[in-house]
Amino acid sequence: MDLTEQPTFEFDVFSKACPSRGTLEHVTGRWGALTLGALYEGSFRFNELRRRVDGVSEKMLSQTLHALERDGLVHREAQPTNPPRVDYELTPLGREVAERLLSLIHFVQGRMDDVLGARERYDTARGGR
Amino acid sequence: MDLTEQPTFEFDVFSKACPSRGTLEHVTGRWGALTLGALYEGSFRFNELRRRVDGVSEKMLSQTLHALERDGLVHREAQPTNPPRVDYELTPLGREVAERLLSLIHFVQGRMDDVLGARERYDTARGGR
Repeated sequence: MDLTEQPTFEFDVFSKACPSRGTLEHVTGRWGALTLGALYEGSFRFNELRRRVDGVSEKMLSQTLHALERDGLVHREAQPTNPPRVDYELTPLGREVAERLLSLIHFVQGRMDDVLGARERYDTARGGR
Repeated sequence: MDLTEQPTFEFDVFSKACPSRGTLEHVTGRWGALTLGALYEGSFRFNELRRRVDGVSEKMLSQTLHALERDGLVHREAQPTNPPRVDYELTPLGREVAERLLSLIHFVQGRMDDVLGARERYDTARGGR
């Protein structure tokens, strides 16, 4: 055994104990992906973001933003005004993550005709749902 | 109103009623992303895939594969052998989706040191968790 050789730890989402799996889930989770995608358009106040991410509850958006802020992907900026104004925006790292997510989102949106066709064939082959 | 103008329907994941949101969730869901990522490596039998996607239950993997097959992203090939042998592989569309997902996964894995550093700063600023 060569003790001069440092073991290099590789993060691996396929391993359930790896912390990268949790981050992947924050990023790709039901609301995480849409929140990052929305924030790529610019900074948002909480209620603006809630309207943009159609269907998210106040509680879920709040949890989602906390997880993304803790992972260093979203920056929360509180202005010392009265009433206080809080803006959310992507960090540089969050921006890089959002770019990759949007590439996936745009691809899926652009191929929905194929997806819906596949669903129809699948359901027909199984005698409808 | 100009009736010659055809409304073009744009799929939009930000709209909660759009079917693209469901597909995005199949693709990015907790097990969907890992299943597509694993299948990018080649075809797998069910139990092989279960080992590769560490932590997934038989039930969740089965549900995940059905949703991805119905969306036209995964192909299920049953061989007429005894015992029957079933292989799962990506369709060409599934391959394109998996490429985009893996780009995101590899990026996240590669930046986990930044993420873990951000978490530490976040928790310290809030007096630990």
